[in-house]
Amino acid sequence: MSDEKKVAVPLGDQAELVVPGFKAAAVKAGIRGKDRLDMALIYSEKPAAVAGCFTTSQVKAAPVLLDMEHLKSGSARAILVNSGVANACSGAQGMAFAKDTAVMVAQALAVQNTDVHVCSTGVIGQQLEMAWFNKGVPALVTSLSPGGFGAVAQAMMTTDTVPKVEKISLDIGGREVSILGLAKGAGMIMPNMATMLSFVMTDAAIAVDVLQAMLSKAVAQSFNVITVDGDTSTNDTVLLLANGVAGHEPLVSVDSPEAQLFQEALDRLTKNLALKIVADGEGATKLITVRVQGAVNNGDAEKIGRTIANSPLFKTACFGEDANWGRIFAAAGRAGVDFDQSKVDIFFDEVQMVAKGLGLFANEAAATQVLKQEDFVVTVDLHSGSDNCEIYTCDFSYEYVKINGDYRS
Amino acid sequence: MSDEKKVAVPLGDQAELVVPGFKAAAVKAGIRGKDRLDMALIYSEKPAAVAGCFTTSQVKAAPVLLDMEHLKSGSARAILVNSGVANACSGAQGMAFAKDTAVMVAQALAVQNTDVHVCSTGVIGQQLEMAWFNKGVPALVTSLSPGGFGAVAQAMMTTDTVPKVEKISLDIGGREVSILGLAKGAGMIMPNMATMLSFVMTDAAIAVDVLQAMLSKAVAQSFNVITVDGDTSTNDTVLLLANGVAGHEPLVSVDSPEAQLFQEALDRLTKNLALKIVADGEGATKLITVRVQGAVNNGDAEKIGRTIANSPLFKTACFGEDANWGRIFAAAGRAGVDFDQSKVDIFFDEVQMVAKGLGLFANEAAATQVLKQEDFVVTVDLHSGSDNCEIYTCDFSYEYVKINGDYRS
Repeated sequence: MSDEKKVAVPLGDQAELVVPGFKAAAVKAGIRGKDRLDMALIYSEKPAAVAGCFTTSQVKAAPVLLDMEHLKSGSARAILVNSGVANACSGAQGMAFAKDTAVMVAQALAVQNTDVHVCSTGVIGQQLEMAWFNKGVPALVTSLSPGGFGAVAQAMMTTDTVPKVEKISLDIGGREVSILGLAKGAGMIMPNMATMLSFVMTDAAIAVDVLQAMLSKAVAQSFNVITVDGDTSTNDTVLLLANGVAGHEPLVSVDSPEAQLFQEALDRLTKNLALKIVADGEGATKLITVRVQGAVNNGDAEKIGRTIANSPLFKTACFGEDANWGRIFAAAGRAGVDFDQSKVDIFFDEVQMVAKGLGLFANEAAATQVLKQEDFVVTVDLHSGSDNCEIYTCDFSYEYVKINGDYRS
Repeated sequence: MSDEKKVAVPLGDQAELVVPGFKAAAVKAGIRGKDRLDMALIYSEKPAAVAGCFTTSQVKAAPVLLDMEHLKSGSARAILVNSGVANACSGAQGMAFAKDTAVMVAQALAVQNTDVHVCSTGVIGQQLEMAWFNKGVPALVTSLSPGGFGAVAQAMMTTDTVPKVEKISLDIGGREVSILGLAKGAGMIMPNMATMLSFVMTDAAIAVDVLQAMLSKAVAQSFNVITVDGDTSTNDTVLLLANGVAGHEPLVSVDSPEAQLFQEALDRLTKNLALKIVADGEGATKLITVRVQGAVNNGDAEKIGRTIANSPLFKTACFGEDANWGRIFAAAGRAGVDFDQSKVDIFFDEVQMVAKGLGLFANEAAATQVLKQEDFVVTVDLHSGSDNCEIYTCDFSYEYVKINGDYRS
């Protein structure tokens, strides 16, 4: 997409992108012209336990509101997703489309309406057209296959430059269990295109309340600690389906050793997907970890981390490879957290630039070398307590302004 | 500074920039090379009542901490200001410099130490050098003159492209009263350069508690409702000096008709100065008023207004002259305020783009024409209550990234 793009993660070996008991397909339904995959279907052959996390925005898209309703049954069989139109800010007509398309899929697959989740990403405010689904849904149903997930990852993309997939296998009770994750997103809200979406499929057997607890925990340390531009979309959705096909004893407590094993794998998978979103951030050339440590509590650490990670002045300095610790210090200062500035240390990777609140100018050349890397860690140590947090962000480039300013011109 | 710069306000007629009983001077002290005014002094021939407002950042520069102390006396005679070095994050040595330079000015002018305020703006983390003040302060004292304020406005500038001055005259009790305001600022924090500073001088006679109340009220509707990049500086300072030379009956109550007259003038003057800062925002090509109305309370209106005004996606869309109401709606949605999206109207000037939460696409061409102007108003009406607020911001251009990314390269 751009010569400036340096951080990119290639699509994995598509042959491996399978999970027992799940099938998928993607088609060109005509939403985004003739030549782009823009509609996809994920199907579980058996009823799957389902967990979900959704945007916290007050302005929720119709499919988000519908999925929140359908989630209450605890069971799911299918996810229908389209790119091109977000079906957000689309009123009663938009909600009717979300419901009608879910019913269409339910009838085609002979499952309950509430077993179908629908997700949309694209332009806010436009209406979907039923013709796209009349054409797309039957084609999706007939082309479902175990190896269809790579195409789904592509059909979900909007301003993404690469599809985002992760797969992890682990052993639970002597059975091999697979977890496959797909994600899309390149800005929290993109050039009039919305959203971060992620779908995670596993053949593990997990009780629905345990599944929801696990997903919420995984999202807190992955999709909820990344930022490209500080904007939260109307459509953000993460869905986790567990169909139990692996055949192990079901996980019914988050505290069991097997559940903890699964949690670790899920955490790793969702974090890797989240980092792929940041690395593919609009115009991004750097992947930056902002680590705040020595805070009195986790909330303080997170406030400071988010303020730094969203500061346009910090992000443009990273683009300019400028070890501008004054901007980091100043962003920390306005985060609404009490701390003693005379205790603060700041590092770029291992290079210390601030000691007890004062600059170490002799280290600037070494710090500049750190910023020339594709990814690095900025650490702010408050020396006020023992709580930490990490927020993941990207830099702010000319390309960001170009993508977001020139999109429709 | 840039071909993209379209919004600029010229320096007023310097002959008018006088206030009875006040003198000023600026010199080239060598902080910013040989050829730039970089140090200035403002002097009141009589003791003046003084009021101040300071940065809310946890990380406050040494001169801010000193001025907060000196403000307690309620009386002031002089303001010493330098650009080039912010004296922020400068530790005990920085505080010693702030105190020593205040003492130097106090001795040269034969006034109390606490009657001298010092302000700095420039690079964070560097130390001042006493040699600059040993040279600069005597030269300033000997060159004080009633007509020196235009030069002060220039000496305060960092990345500002124009000096910012405003003058208003009014009648109080049959006497002509002058209010003269100076300001600098182009980003809340600039390319490693910090700060918004403003000094307001008047010959009105006003009791110090009334003066502080008036200044706080004026700042709330001017400097506190502008944003360039959402960053708050370590050095932000506004000082108001009233020396009483006009000779009218002193204002001792904020409720008197005369006090209300003065408040109106002060509000207008500070708001004009604040708008000049936004118009001169780093890389700015547009001056944008974000008006939120129909909120349940003022706090809700302000949260939504600030979230929109700081959204990089909104600001880049304004640069691209794209009537992208979806981004405005989405920013409102993530502001942490409850509202009913099906009641929301959005306007660009008088052109309605959203009615009851749904887009009016037929009006897009007219809305695009509004965005081609140098300044315009975006109105979000929540139809939930009767409270309003306005936040003033600018767009986000390539030039912003250039100024802030390439500053030291």
